[in-house]
Amino acid sequence: MEAILGPRGYLHSSEDLALYQYDGGIDAALPDLVTFPQSTEEVVALVKLAAEFGMPIVGRGAGTGLSGGGVARAGGVIVSFARMNRILEIDLDNECAVVQPGVVNLDISLAVEADGYFYAPDPSSQKACTIGGNVSENAGGPHTLAYGVTTNHVLGMECVLPDGTVFETGGRSFDTAEGYDLTGLLVGSEGTMVLVTKVIVRLMRKPELVKTMLAIYDRPEDAGATVAEITARAITPVAVEMMDGVLLRMVEEAYHAGYPMDAAAVLLIELEGIREAVEEQVEQIREACMHSRAREVRVARNQAERELLWKGRKNAFGAVGRFAPSSLVQDGVVPRTKIAPALDFILDVARRYDLTISNIFHAGDGNLHPLILFDPRKPGETEKVKRAGDEILQYCIQVGGSITGEHGVGMEKNEMMAHLYSSDSLDAIAGFKKLFDPRCHLNPGKVLPTGHGCLEIRQLPSDLRY
Amino acid sequence: MEAILGPRGYLHSSEDLALYQYDGGIDAALPDLVTFPQSTEEVVALVKLAAEFGMPIVGRGAGTGLSGGGVARAGGVIVSFARMNRILEIDLDNECAVVQPGVVNLDISLAVEADGYFYAPDPSSQKACTIGGNVSENAGGPHTLAYGVTTNHVLGMECVLPDGTVFETGGRSFDTAEGYDLTGLLVGSEGTMVLVTKVIVRLMRKPELVKTMLAIYDRPEDAGATVAEITARAITPVAVEMMDGVLLRMVEEAYHAGYPMDAAAVLLIELEGIREAVEEQVEQIREACMHSRAREVRVARNQAERELLWKGRKNAFGAVGRFAPSSLVQDGVVPRTKIAPALDFILDVARRYDLTISNIFHAGDGNLHPLILFDPRKPGETEKVKRAGDEILQYCIQVGGSITGEHGVGMEKNEMMAHLYSSDSLDAIAGFKKLFDPRCHLNPGKVLPTGHGCLEIRQLPSDLRY
Repeated sequence: MEAILGPRGYLHSSEDLALYQYDGGIDAALPDLVTFPQSTEEVVALVKLAAEFGMPIVGRGAGTGLSGGGVARAGGVIVSFARMNRILEIDLDNECAVVQPGVVNLDISLAVEADGYFYAPDPSSQKACTIGGNVSENAGGPHTLAYGVTTNHVLGMECVLPDGTVFETGGRSFDTAEGYDLTGLLVGSEGTMVLVTKVIVRLMRKPELVKTMLAIYDRPEDAGATVAEITARAITPVAVEMMDGVLLRMVEEAYHAGYPMDAAAVLLIELEGIREAVEEQVEQIREACMHSRAREVRVARNQAERELLWKGRKNAFGAVGRFAPSSLVQDGVVPRTKIAPALDFILDVARRYDLTISNIFHAGDGNLHPLILFDPRKPGETEKVKRAGDEILQYCIQVGGSITGEHGVGMEKNEMMAHLYSSDSLDAIAGFKKLFDPRCHLNPGKVLPTGHGCLEIRQLPSDLRY
Repeated sequence: MEAILGPRGYLHSSEDLALYQYDGGIDAALPDLVTFPQSTEEVVALVKLAAEFGMPIVGRGAGTGLSGGGVARAGGVIVSFARMNRILEIDLDNECAVVQPGVVNLDISLAVEADGYFYAPDPSSQKACTIGGNVSENAGGPHTLAYGVTTNHVLGMECVLPDGTVFETGGRSFDTAEGYDLTGLLVGSEGTMVLVTKVIVRLMRKPELVKTMLAIYDRPEDAGATVAEITARAITPVAVEMMDGVLLRMVEEAYHAGYPMDAAAVLLIELEGIREAVEEQVEQIREACMHSRAREVRVARNQAERELLWKGRKNAFGAVGRFAPSSLVQDGVVPRTKIAPALDFILDVARRYDLTISNIFHAGDGNLHPLILFDPRKPGETEKVKRAGDEILQYCIQVGGSITGEHGVGMEKNEMMAHLYSSDSLDAIAGFKKLFDPRCHLNPGKVLPTGHGCLEIRQLPSDLRY
């Protein structure tokens, strides 16, 4: 490996490896080696070497993922894209940018800001997370409501197979359409099919005006009703975020964003567009909120006030870290009409398991992020939290939703896939992975449940594996 | 088959079969049987029966396709979805509709118009073409510029494999994301992987105001320059269509849309949004056109004038039919900056081959539709036209574009795939098809070139096939 990457191109001491055993979720596993390739050629050489030794290969961006996607569950080589972090080309004629996988999400928008463009998907971790990780997990963000998730903004990619083959998918246009759409299949494949070494992302025009509003409620169900009321009035905000009182107080103590300490819930609503239109919509949204018994509606008067309102939301997970040694965030999805009953159900789970659960929802598109606070040092606590989390996700499935909106399945929820798909379907799904990765080198133990994935194969003695 | 579909559920007389040998393209082949299932269960039963007899299975919508996707190239059973044409559910809470594959594209928009919604992809054939066909070919339309192609508007599907297995993909939300995104892979797979029996489509809010403009030019290159000028001014119209003088005169004689008979080219530009914004943009577009030496800019004053302008564009292919016994339409894509040189190249091809070529472009996104007029009864003419068309597509590849934007590869261009992909890549791509259709029952001879597709396998004696 040193011959491929040079003496500073990898880490292998146990202290170094320990830093790469976690991502933003709660699962952990030690890799055997962490590598830092600087080019597609180095990636090709290193996957060939890893394959020769039968080692698992796990791609990793900034490690901000929330489902264990970048954790080397079965050991092996982590391929960190930290040093493949250049924006290779900004092509405004075709409204796209060609970037390496280690580029930080927000850096793309900063690079094209002066030209009036931005990159739309904005995970809460956008100051740290990388495009490669976003592509692997098909990341979303508060603005998913208007703009969709990562897959709606990736036009093409360069990928490396575990045998070292390099191939390209898509191009610089929506209209590059010959053959099958592999880009669509590979975005969100969570590192189980390919390593992504280049991404062509779509750039969008910045709106003329952005307005951010905060609506404050004495009862959480009124916040839920407002979401329905906004839909009924035929307004589509670019973001509708909901936070409950438990979360609000933690965020406010940590960041002083001006959130009310005594509210039961708030909605953070953002509108974008042409000046006249946005100003009119602000009034319509204000009416919808008051109609649904909001106590107060505030509108940010300038960019500083707007950033302050978002600061609390974007750093909510960090704020929670000050109040509990650990937390588990769920990523359930329910139909938009089921937000209020879902909130009731989560409160009931909190009571029955005697747990503190704070709630932060992408309410506009029904994506729930209940955060369960806990102390992993208490015996049995982690297991209890996982059971409570599973119960919430079962509820989401039951009302016609899903177990993940934007964080991926990873190693956190791979066993739950068996509740969503029949055994035959799971075998069929596993067939796709094997088409890219027949020998199960890439990210074993993710996405697919035991019996259908690669983990069992990897745990066989090495002479039986191939 | 009669036991499955009833006595009126299929056609098999040679006069009836002759009606199903064509689609909107120029290739033809006779099926052995045309079937009209009325439910998923009937589709399942009939594919099982067809498989038992080793017959090819070819899905078909309205037959308006332009690359032979619905033509039974190797004979076999055509599965027409003409009788699975119901809108099953309109779910405005989740802004989607659940439809059968035989629903006509425009009928979805008509069904939700009163609620202020529409279905965005609008192929020129939208009054006739069906959603199932749109999904199979990943159809676009003039409004692709703003809204993307079919894949950007399909949230989920129900599919039938050639062994009769039924499975669902996706759901009612962008956020239904567990496992691999099979919806993305299957949209645009041209009937070679599954038969689609149900589609969940995204509905969008109708804009407050739509304005349609016609800019008239004495030189075609000035129309091309306008497209670049509009991009530079940071305005994104929802459609920018270009027609050259040859086409204009044919359309005007057929439809009296008010197009100028002496112009060298026109641009048809559409803007949508909030009233104030659109009115301002109309002025900016007018300036951009005049700056690029437009002779005149007209703005439709009402819905009737707007429909008249579009009538000419939407019926252009029909108009051409009055002037030549046949025509071949290409579907090339070039970067938006290469529209003017592409037009020059096409003129040169027309001169060298002594052919009349009229041009109609989705100019805003670089999707070219040169129409080559010809008489197939003249010996050698069809072959000459195909060679000229291939030369145009080779040019598109050479400048960094593609051989299809929205019509699909089909049987028209499957051999050209060998210019775009290496033999190894084509084998890998064929692997995807075989995962769904290991015995090559579905739409043989489409998408993949000879040597990598199913046609060779089908032409083996039947006892060697399996």
